Amino acid sequence: MKKLTQILTVATVAFFVLISSANADEYVYKQSFMPRETVKIDLAKTAMFVTDPQNDFLSEKSPAWGLVGPTVIKHKVVEKEKTLKALAKKIGIPVFYSTHMYTPQDFANWKSLNGIDKIMFENKMFAQGTWGIDYHPELKPDSNTIVMNPHKGLSNFWTGDAALQLRQYGIETIILYGMSANMCVESHARDAIENGFDVIIIADATAAAGDAAYEAALTNYEFLAHEVVTTNQIIKRLEKAKRGE
Amino acid sequence: MKKLTQILTVATVAFFVLISSANADEYVYKQSFMPRETVKIDLAKTAMFVTDPQNDFLSEKSPAWGLVGPTVIKHKVVEKEKTLKALAKKIGIPVFYSTHMYTPQDFANWKSLNGIDKIMFENKMFAQGTWGIDYHPELKPDSNTIVMNPHKGLSNFWTGDAALQLRQYGIETIILYGMSANMCVESHARDAIENGFDVIIIADATAAAGDAAYEAALTNYEFLAHEVVTTNQIIKRLEKAKRGE
Amino acid sequence: MKKLTQILTVATVAFFVLISSANADEYVYKQSFMPRETVKIDLAKTAMFVTDPQNDFLSEKSPAWGLVGPTVIKHKVVEKEKTLKALAKKIGIPVFYSTHMYTPQDFANWKSLNGIDKIMFENKMFAQGTWGIDYHPELKPDSNTIVMNPHKGLSNFWTGDAALQLRQYGIETIILYGMSANMCVESHARDAIENGFDVIIIADATAAAGDAAYEAALTNYEFLAHEVVTTNQIIKRLEKAKRGE
Amino acid sequence: MKKLTQILTVATVAFFVLISSANADEYVYKQSFMPRETVKIDLAKTAMFVTDPQNDFLSEKSPAWGLVGPTVIKHKVVEKEKTLKALAKKIGIPVFYSTHMYTPQDFANWKSLNGIDKIMFENKMFAQGTWGIDYHPELKPDSNTIVMNPHKGLSNFWTGDAALQLRQYGIETIILYGMSANMCVESHARDAIENGFDVIIIADATAAAGDAAYEAALTNYEFLAHEVVTTNQIIKRLEKAKRGE
Repeated sequence: MKKLTQILTVATVAFFVLISSANADEYVYKQSFMPRETVKIDLAKTAMFVTDPQNDFLSEKSPAWGLVGPTVIKHKVVEKEKTLKALAKKIGIPVFYSTHMYTPQDFANWKSLNGIDKIMFENKMFAQGTWGIDYHPELKPDSNTIVMNPHKGLSNFWTGDAALQLRQYGIETIILYGMSANMCVESHARDAIENGFDVIIIADATAAAGDAAYEAALTNYEFLAHEVVTTNQIIKRLEKAKRGE
Repeated sequence: MKKLTQILTVATVAFFVLISSANADEYVYKQSFMPRETVKIDLAKTAMFVTDPQNDFLSEKSPAWGLVGPTVIKHKVVEKEKTLKALAKKIGIPVFYSTHMYTPQDFANWKSLNGIDKIMFENKMFAQGTWGIDYHPELKPDSNTIVMNPHKGLSNFWTGDAALQLRQYGIETIILYGMSANMCVESHARDAIENGFDVIIIADATAAAGDAAYEAALTNYEFLAHEVVTTNQIIKRLEKAKRGE
Repeated sequence: MKKLTQILTVATVAFFVLISSANADEYVYKQSFMPRETVKIDLAKTAMFVTDPQNDFLSEKSPAWGLVGPTVIKHKVVEKEKTLKALAKKIGIPVFYSTHMYTPQDFANWKSLNGIDKIMFENKMFAQGTWGIDYHPELKPDSNTIVMNPHKGLSNFWTGDAALQLRQYGIETIILYGMSANMCVESHARDAIENGFDVIIIADATAAAGDAAYEAALTNYEFLAHEVVTTNQIIKRLEKAKRGE
Repeated sequence: MKKLTQILTVATVAFFVLISSANADEYVYKQSFMPRETVKIDLAKTAMFVTDPQNDFLSEKSPAWGLVGPTVIKHKVVEKEKTLKALAKKIGIPVFYSTHMYTPQDFANWKSLNGIDKIMFENKMFAQGTWGIDYHPELKPDSNTIVMNPHKGLSNFWTGDAALQLRQYGIETIILYGMSANMCVESHARDAIENGFDVIIIADATAAAGDAAYEAALTNYEFLAHEVVTTNQIIKRLEKAKRGE
């Protein structure tokens, strides 16, 4: 207990020092007791990892727009995803796409639906072969995008090929963002860590179904991630990063 | 979008009806748009599932007590775990224990540590062969407790034998609680769902490192669980539940 | 040791009794020490599970035909798969399809290839969007077929959604067959068991790259399966089986 | 088909060239069509990986000795495991131990047992807290041994922490051996590959329940492994291998 109290004290002091000196670009941790780390980025072992860059989360006509639209707009999620995708190509690191998909038979037959499933199934979101499952028009995959198997549930590590694909490309660190903050982004973060990957989460390149959901995600990211960053912060870091150092 | 707006409206109305008529025992959802379900409990396919019932989270001398102690005490987590364990035995459903464990070599050699790992490793929490990893004295396993392989990280579904064990006992629904709310409880909830189990989470038989962490867990449980309940609420349901109906 | 010697003795006696009285339809175990079981089939919890019903394993123009063609023809794999698919529909149990798929980027970029991968990659087998990955013309999915996410490697339990899908349909027992015997069929058997499913393997509704590979599969099936059967044997059992008994 | 025929031809020629020039130490592939590779070994990313180095498979008093004893003795499995363990320590690569373990409750309650489970359960093999589950006296872990969570079933990747542990040590290639050839060794090989690891299997540092089981394992190793080797062959390679090249 003594040790943690010391950590808390040091952390609290560090926290105020941080606030006073902080670069405006930097993510400011909400929980002062969380240890901070600046992950060393080796471009040869790093990838962007994007969850659900699809119309049903990012386009105005989505049935979920009433829930997620406000933060998607406020955080400029589409613009940031577009910028990060272009940057990845420029600096030569791959972008992994983890998409969401349900078949007509999933909708018709699944018997066990949790809260978020019920919303998605009621609205037939991410339905195979529909507009909703298409990539947002500004975020279509290109030669630098690795499209993995689609996921059911919330994480490609359980119902897709994420672990194998990342390993096949020699990736050890993922820079994670996309939709939605406390659902697929957070589940991918949890599972990436269970598989031994380093995880950097971009706190402002994601959005959620309401402020409570977004704030919950941030709180948990600080526990789960190796580092939480802002889009501006990681862009600067990536522009200076090297390969194999 | 129309549909979701309808859901929102209906849900909001339902929400106020619920509040006015609510049994004081019932968990009150924070997010009015989340669909509600009362999971039908068949005792023949239901188990309690408890995460980390160990000194390093539940006893006063734990190095984490400064962080988790206040909610552990406030929520009477130990008392509730004890009551639920006795009830399970009485009604004949098994209690699955998922414990946390690190070896001296994990502490010495692991190279990838996220935020929560850093806190646990700095304090040598859940160290193999120590007092901290022992069961809380009031929560020792008995003949009705299934002790699974210990987990590293946050979920037994990744580093233990949870999926296989539940299946070997014919379990389809787990009643989930324990420590800590937004870490191991939430990760087990996410992974149980990815594996097709129904998950009922007891919102007040858990605690967390701070109020933000606890509130984040509740927010996410409402998305993730098939049903969120209170201890009193589930006790009443279990006392009336039958087998094989 | 005494016990196992007894088992061996009993098993050997049982073996010869079995041989003398055996219905010609029954699978004859090669290893006399293996325990035998007749799995009780409840149609409400049973599904067919088929691996790789695709041109690149089952059609004459496949680049692998030189390797697998002889046993595919000898065992009449296509005919049997067709018969079993029709039977499943008649008796009302679902058929799960686990298909094999690689993207152009997998072929271009994967750095870790084992023996079987090298053969498949050299021949661009199961390439997304090609004839080779299409279903065999006689085995196209219908309303009773559950098409899961495709798998990379050898098992849908690792790179697809098999565990979740089976659970969503309440399946506890799979009747497993398809291509190829010692690769995808065997890997799916191993992983289904690690997930707590009961596995019945149809020994003559599969084929392999050579006799050694097929014999290796049979040897291992006897250890791995809950029961090894022939097509005729399981058809008779299924025609008499009931739901929910 | 043309391509594979070419491979077959080239492979067959290569096969006879190989036989005539082969170092007596080298593993001779049984299946001439399998591609051959010499995996480049970087000691910084390589580990030994040993399955079930325990009395119930390796000691004379084991109830399974009647089945596995003959090949354990013939292949000198214990001596080879001892030699490889010492070599690993000398050259500075870790040895990962994946042990087998069942609890009294597993024996009492599990409802789904396949063929091999039935043999193990009937003989109460690998029972927690017994002599049978202890390490063979010559193979006790030392400071260079990473003891992972024990596995149920056949693979630590499903019911233990293998994937996470290997990643935490930066391992990309495992040198795999132990007991038994067509069960735990083969299942670990299959799962390591599904997770993107390179796998070298030592064909003569393993044994099995009968000759058919051992031959089945060899046949499948040639498909599954990145390279199949003999103990002598890998010892020579490892003695010359470097770090970080």
